[in-house]
Amino acid sequence: MGDFPAMLELNVGGVHYTTKLKTLLSEPNTLLYEMFTGNPSDIIKDAKGRYFIDRDGVLFRYILDYLRDSAISLPEGFREKERLKQEAEHFRLAGLTKTLNQLTENRPPGCITVGYRGSFQFGKDGLADVKFRKLSRLLICGRVALCREVFGDTLNESRDPDHGGPDRYTSRFFLKHTFIEQAFDDLQKSGFRLAGSCGSGTSGSSTDLKPGVDSEENRWNHYNEFVFIRD
Amino acid sequence: MGDFPAMLELNVGGVHYTTKLKTLLSEPNTLLYEMFTGNPSDIIKDAKGRYFIDRDGVLFRYILDYLRDSAISLPEGFREKERLKQEAEHFRLAGLTKTLNQLTENRPPGCITVGYRGSFQFGKDGLADVKFRKLSRLLICGRVALCREVFGDTLNESRDPDHGGPDRYTSRFFLKHTFIEQAFDDLQKSGFRLAGSCGSGTSGSSTDLKPGVDSEENRWNHYNEFVFIRD
Amino acid sequence: MGDFPAMLELNVGGVHYTTKLKTLLSEPNTLLYEMFTGNPSDIIKDAKGRYFIDRDGVLFRYILDYLRDSAISLPEGFREKERLKQEAEHFRLAGLTKTLNQLTENRPPGCITVGYRGSFQFGKDGLADVKFRKLSRLLICGRVALCREVFGDTLNESRDPDHGGPDRYTSRFFLKHTFIEQAFDDLQKSGFRLAGSCGSGTSGSSTDLKPGVDSEENRWNHYNEFVFIRD
Amino acid sequence: MGDFPAMLELNVGGVHYTTKLKTLLSEPNTLLYEMFTGNPSDIIKDAKGRYFIDRDGVLFRYILDYLRDSAISLPEGFREKERLKQEAEHFRLAGLTKTLNQLTENRPPGCITVGYRGSFQFGKDGLADVKFRKLSRLLICGRVALCREVFGDTLNESRDPDHGGPDRYTSRFFLKHTFIEQAFDDLQKSGFRLAGSCGSGTSGSSTDLKPGVDSEENRWNHYNEFVFIRD
Amino acid sequence: MGDFPAMLELNVGGVHYTTKLKTLLSEPNTLLYEMFTGNPSDIIKDAKGRYFIDRDGVLFRYILDYLRDSAISLPEGFREKERLKQEAEHFRLAGLTKTLNQLTENRPPGCITVGYRGSFQFGKDGLADVKFRKLSRLLICGRVALCREVFGDTLNESRDPDHGGPDRYTSRFFLKHTFIEQAFDDLQKSGFRLAGSCGSGTSGSSTDLKPGVDSEENRWNHYNEFVFIRD
Repeated sequence: MGDFPAMLELNVGGVHYTTKLKTLLSEPNTLLYEMFTGNPSDIIKDAKGRYFIDRDGVLFRYILDYLRDSAISLPEGFREKERLKQEAEHFRLAGLTKTLNQLTENRPPGCITVGYRGSFQFGKDGLADVKFRKLSRLLICGRVALCREVFGDTLNESRDPDHGGPDRYTSRFFLKHTFIEQAFDDLQKSGFRLAGSCGSGTSGSSTDLKPGVDSEENRWNHYNEFVFIRD
Repeated sequence: MGDFPAMLELNVGGVHYTTKLKTLLSEPNTLLYEMFTGNPSDIIKDAKGRYFIDRDGVLFRYILDYLRDSAISLPEGFREKERLKQEAEHFRLAGLTKTLNQLTENRPPGCITVGYRGSFQFGKDGLADVKFRKLSRLLICGRVALCREVFGDTLNESRDPDHGGPDRYTSRFFLKHTFIEQAFDDLQKSGFRLAGSCGSGTSGSSTDLKPGVDSEENRWNHYNEFVFIRD
Repeated sequence: MGDFPAMLELNVGGVHYTTKLKTLLSEPNTLLYEMFTGNPSDIIKDAKGRYFIDRDGVLFRYILDYLRDSAISLPEGFREKERLKQEAEHFRLAGLTKTLNQLTENRPPGCITVGYRGSFQFGKDGLADVKFRKLSRLLICGRVALCREVFGDTLNESRDPDHGGPDRYTSRFFLKHTFIEQAFDDLQKSGFRLAGSCGSGTSGSSTDLKPGVDSEENRWNHYNEFVFIRD
Repeated sequence: MGDFPAMLELNVGGVHYTTKLKTLLSEPNTLLYEMFTGNPSDIIKDAKGRYFIDRDGVLFRYILDYLRDSAISLPEGFREKERLKQEAEHFRLAGLTKTLNQLTENRPPGCITVGYRGSFQFGKDGLADVKFRKLSRLLICGRVALCREVFGDTLNESRDPDHGGPDRYTSRFFLKHTFIEQAFDDLQKSGFRLAGSCGSGTSGSSTDLKPGVDSEENRWNHYNEFVFIRD
Repeated sequence: MGDFPAMLELNVGGVHYTTKLKTLLSEPNTLLYEMFTGNPSDIIKDAKGRYFIDRDGVLFRYILDYLRDSAISLPEGFREKERLKQEAEHFRLAGLTKTLNQLTENRPPGCITVGYRGSFQFGKDGLADVKFRKLSRLLICGRVALCREVFGDTLNESRDPDHGGPDRYTSRFFLKHTFIEQAFDDLQKSGFRLAGSCGSGTSGSSTDLKPGVDSEENRWNHYNEFVFIRD
């Protein structure tokens, strides 16, 4: 280790980096640790005396970042995750590989549908203006594992208890609360985005209503369905 | 301070910057201030005599911008806010850290739904062509704190006065005005985008209308719901 | 002016540019004009003899472009307009500042809704296949100034003549023509994009139709609403 | 021509390119041809002996590409078409200017709406499960020239034969086939994207149906409208 | 082969790369193999002694990546596939050309529509809360080859068995299961995205229901249609 200078200039596939030896040695059992604790003459140098590494020069920026902070913070919407994973594997950075795998594996792509049968509450007893959204149940459909990941404790599985493995699909889950926006916030937190939505009203005159059903409420019945997708 | 030249060349992780000493010292109590008022021989230089800093070279562009103008203007849709925050913390730029925190904290992600029960106004008294959109109330649903942030004084909370903390969800807020587009503009100003929308008509014949209700208006009743999301 | 060479190398915050002296002097009363008609020894040089300017190196690309052509053509979807405006102000390029202001000020963000009550035309006289879209009016809702900017002469304001200032909102404008796609094209030309849409049918049996109303047309009545947003 | 070396180093506004003289002379009557068949001493050189061109350095990448292959392949979603056109004009590359004009002129922005009145086919004769989508006509609305460009021979203009010039709008075109997805594919091939969609059912009881109309089919009647936009 | 050094510096159109000779020779019968097993003096060098290649400098990054790993991993959403294919052809990298062709050819653009006639299941026998989504069939419409590629074994073609070639369009395919979200997941896996959606209810009173049909279920009938597009 004493044979390398404290600060090194690197030529990674033609892109030049400067870093401390300490940074390159911050994680043992890696290719860089092996290279820079070995014999300096084993590493080819370029014409300017920079240590040469025959890998992609652009992605090495994140390799260095990871070595400096022992953590990685990628740009939002980073588009070279798969490519970076290849570099991490090449350099045998087990921690970075694991982090990148978690980023992609723990968030498998997929789709969840939130639906609700809604109406409006009409005042019967003088509260003429009680006309807010009313719904009794937020329906959750999709792959069981995804639904559980997103909604956790707020998920009610009681109507589909014998659903087999987590890879089965269900259309019989619902939520323990009735706040649509809370469900949407939970989906957003898990990386889903709203991809499409459908609304439809009901049909039929209200002549044959059961006793106790408000006819106005009945007229405003509708089913709205929201499709959330995670890429 | 007299020991450094007035203009310095920096090597930040391999990217080269040139700046004035005055710029680097523009904010006291920072890592750069400490470095460049100290002993020049304490800073490693690269082969070309540039002062070396072992951090991400690309993001240092914004560090310098901040030091030059004592303010930061990021590209629209900037995707490295979290990464930049790490750099600001490393360099102990409290002002920049605070600004970046405000950018992200003051605009928490979330969802707000705007709904309205609408119809059309039909002329009863010879104004045969009065057939514009008619609605009595713009319903606002979502997390209480978000709704307040976006709509401020135009929000009417009178129907949900005992809602507990700002983290509760409500579906009983509405606006003091009835201009949908004004609500949408307010949402846009707060960084929300329209992510989905649902429409539905009503059901039932108009035979059992209450006196004074226009039957044409009644036939055109519909409920439109717009989901706005902030990332 | 004779003291500077005809071609100069610049070091702008670490990014190197090469340009003609003539280009830098193309606009008088600017910071660059002042610098490069003054005393060369007043400008710091870097180690390679390049004239040093302590500003963002990347955005200087557009500063030079503007000086070369006395005009600026930005990339589509350019995300550093605000940052470039700061640079233009620093260099006192009044023309560029004005152009950038126009780009953002003349196109304020906002929302316009286009709605229509439509049906289909059914043949009464043997033209059994006349079943095209039929609508009587394209409704325009939004901030008055925005509506006027987009639709100009094709806007009919006759039903909301006393609307106060251009910052008021209206839901009583409509178009002089009935081609939805022409309205959409006009919105697109003004930089709006379609962000959401809602459809709904009507309710009620057609038993109580007024004389002269085609019952099939009546059954197919619907209201479609399209939300356009400009960022 | 003998006065320039076979390989040249260029300094284009500070960005360095290396290319063959042959490449620069590949198209006669251009500014580059003129420069590099003239007197070498007429071209300013930078300190490293590179031939200097006072234009945008980044876009010159595509100028060189064009000269190498006598053709241009731009990145998908390339955002500097207008800027590149300015460069092509400056260098008098007539072929490149023409290509860039075609890219933008031949694909004018605009909007086309596809609508259909649909239902489901119900089995009358024991085929209890014949319940597929049924529609009689795909309606096409928009500017005449756009509709023709997209749908070509599959467009039926018979119901709007006297439509004047191609800049008029029509809502009376339809397709010769009834495959929605084929229409969508044709729109996609022409660079349109689906920007919004609306659905609505019909109203009215089915008591007054004409003889021969299936009452179930009638109940499921709906009108779906799809807005396609080309940027 | 002995005539070139083990590590080479390349100047590709002005961008500098450093790589091992072994990397450049990793695939025989290519232009690079031919160049770097030939006579070194046949390759022009730049002023710094770098071997010169008159091609796009930026895309060469991926050419080198491919040679290093005998595989290519492109950035997500990579926008220069066509441009890279040109480079691969120029360098006669048959494997890379084939891979790039597969990326674009095996995933032709197109559109698939998923529709379903749905309702809700109402409890007849005391199970008052059985009110989940109910549907009997997921309809698949689009070009036959696309539908088969996406849905494979889960596709039921029995109602359109004589459909001619795979380029025909069909609206009579359906799925063997009834999980909407599984269909959406399959579409996402094949690179489709949800581009639009339409919902509509039914019309007509429920007075003339056939025996055994639940009137509530009937009232909630709706048709939702989802358009998926692959670019």
